[in-house]
Amino acid sequence: MLEKIRIILVNTSHPGNIGSAARAMKTMGLTQLILVSPKIFPDPKAVEMSVHAQDILDNARVTTSLQEALAGCHLAIGASARSRALAIEPLEPKACAEKIIQALTPSTPPTTSHVALVFGREHAGLTNEELLCCHYHVNIPSNPEYSSLNLAAAVQVLSYELRLAYLQGCQQAENHLRQATPKATIDDVEQFYTHLEMILSQLHFLKKENPALMPKIRRIFNRIQLEKPEVHILRGILTTIQRLI
Amino acid sequence: MLEKIRIILVNTSHPGNIGSAARAMKTMGLTQLILVSPKIFPDPKAVEMSVHAQDILDNARVTTSLQEALAGCHLAIGASARSRALAIEPLEPKACAEKIIQALTPSTPPTTSHVALVFGREHAGLTNEELLCCHYHVNIPSNPEYSSLNLAAAVQVLSYELRLAYLQGCQQAENHLRQATPKATIDDVEQFYTHLEMILSQLHFLKKENPALMPKIRRIFNRIQLEKPEVHILRGILTTIQRLI
Repeated sequence: MLEKIRIILVNTSHPGNIGSAARAMKTMGLTQLILVSPKIFPDPKAVEMSVHAQDILDNARVTTSLQEALAGCHLAIGASARSRALAIEPLEPKACAEKIIQALTPSTPPTTSHVALVFGREHAGLTNEELLCCHYHVNIPSNPEYSSLNLAAAVQVLSYELRLAYLQGCQQAENHLRQATPKATIDDVEQFYTHLEMILSQLHFLKKENPALMPKIRRIFNRIQLEKPEVHILRGILTTIQRLI
Repeated sequence: MLEKIRIILVNTSHPGNIGSAARAMKTMGLTQLILVSPKIFPDPKAVEMSVHAQDILDNARVTTSLQEALAGCHLAIGASARSRALAIEPLEPKACAEKIIQALTPSTPPTTSHVALVFGREHAGLTNEELLCCHYHVNIPSNPEYSSLNLAAAVQVLSYELRLAYLQGCQQAENHLRQATPKATIDDVEQFYTHLEMILSQLHFLKKENPALMPKIRRIFNRIQLEKPEVHILRGILTTIQRLI
């Protein structure tokens, strides 16, 4: 799945940063690097900084425009240092990673999905025009007095979050297979609430004078993701009480 | 709070990595760098790579032993690439960061707490002896086929997690002040379970033949942290039912 994620570096100045970014990607299992108009590439400095990730550099595609790099992608997220004038609330890295992994998870459009994470220039980041080519922006929380992460460091942090989200997705899929107990649907839970409200009204526990009580009770059960058998237990209790009334 | 966290780099070979680590620290708000027997330091390459984080380098302490670097610390966590032969299960970065922020949070020993995050050599990491000076180990989840994060990249990821844990701590403290609703204590919840069990037995909903039912019911409510007023609502319902029996 991670190989479907394109890391796009736009207009990078220093080839060493391209090499370091390749290394950062590979440590987290990412493989697909696209370079939009790099200033200097290929270059021995890139190879030197990539250490054992030269395969990423060898397979990197070079394009002359961001549009070309994004072709065929279903989701593009741009890394942005500040929220700028675009007034789009950026995602946190964790939310960004989850969105990407979700977009690549089978039930959604099948295996043809491709997603991209776009990084801008070392000093100037992405232009507003480039950011507008992306569906979302992501911002790494940082020291407000010095927020300038090195390009490869930003790639490292976001790739790390992608790996965590990927591992969590694998874990969930495994739990899903193992765990036979299905969650209750919204309908099941609504029927339980209707039943509960009826009983509590008949018991005069719910009174017209206190309309805030039932929402408080719903809030308790809304916080538990009830499983189907649990709803059966709770409704069984309600039915038992009903016989007394 | 973040200034109480020492980042200790042991026996670093390349001064450029020290500079990059300083930059990574500063982007996340960390300031305290200690270098144990660096191969080359100070050095212009370190300054170059630190970019605007030269203040971190200027204030860095150099020691000749890890013990000296750890003096006065209450908690030390060592970054370890593999679990090695020590058979200690390493922490995940998020858990490591939470442990550190927790150790620095006032209610525990006061403002005198100091904690350290220890990073080893570029190629060989920390020795077993050095790892044994630490209370815990932390391991960054990585590609099993290429797990070699650059030193500054590892500092960046763990500093990022520290910043997240720190921001979350601030948020929680703020919510705590704002939110007047106290959580129920374990006693409160146990009394609710006792009351519930009594009623359900009297209703013959709980039967001796089915001892697994009550644990299933406890599991429903155990999944949420009930608030005190919520326990009052639930017990109010039980009291109302009790009058029917």
